[in-house]
Amino acid sequence: MTQLYETEIINIKGTQGHSDIKDGLSFQVSSPLEADRDGLNPEQFMGLAWSTCLNATIMSLLKGRNLSHLDSKVRVIVKMMKEEAMAGYYFEMKAIVSIQSLNLEDTMKMAIQADKFCPVSKLISKNPHVTLEVEKY
Amino acid sequence: MTQLYETEIINIKGTQGHSDIKDGLSFQVSSPLEADRDGLNPEQFMGLAWSTCLNATIMSLLKGRNLSHLDSKVRVIVKMMKEEAMAGYYFEMKAIVSIQSLNLEDTMKMAIQADKFCPVSKLISKNPHVTLEVEKY
Repeated sequence: MTQLYETEIINIKGTQGHSDIKDGLSFQVSSPLEADRDGLNPEQFMGLAWSTCLNATIMSLLKGRNLSHLDSKVRVIVKMMKEEAMAGYYFEMKAIVSIQSLNLEDTMKMAIQADKFCPVSKLISKNPHVTLEVEKY
Repeated sequence: MTQLYETEIINIKGTQGHSDIKDGLSFQVSSPLEADRDGLNPEQFMGLAWSTCLNATIMSLLKGRNLSHLDSKVRVIVKMMKEEAMAGYYFEMKAIVSIQSLNLEDTMKMAIQADKFCPVSKLISKNPHVTLEVEKY
């Protein structure tokens, strides 16, 4: 394999502090459990990562099929859940894909294909709380 | 289980477009493969998510051990890799944890414990390209 790119992010003080991209932007961060604090939370970052990556992969597949004139959209819903027994937290993530002019069956085929290639999907999609749906554009 | 929080992110036009938090911020996004375009990329969002979440979990564990006076830091390095054979891409992610006043052995114990509880770790840590390291604070 070949390395094409590298980035580094440093967090100080968890959701009480900030997360900084090395040589880049600094973000004040927060937790949904601390509703009185401004800042982006991990749920939002995960949704930003997956929606961007999955839709970029769909666009690349459409281009490969000479369908680059079609627009696509990916909505990602991230839920923070609490397990009753262990008192632990986990995220549920659902991506909802829509592609202009395609019916739901063809959209699902494209979404499943993209989910195999998208690097963020490769990291998360084996998790049982991560799911894929489609809707009309 | 109980749902504590929900957020939705919508991506338009992949890494050529923008990713918007519903009722929140809009981010211009980009890909490391398009070096001439400004915007945050999925690699950075993944690093922001994990560094924030893992360090928040470490802080919570420290608090549970009456060690909340100790500072901790999590650096996450995300690499975009290209597979030679399949011409596919994947991410390598490494978190490097450091905790004030703790030696490397105790830091590793705490990091491994946090990695079991952190919701982002629960999504990604079974992937063979995701690793955990420690360093002196």
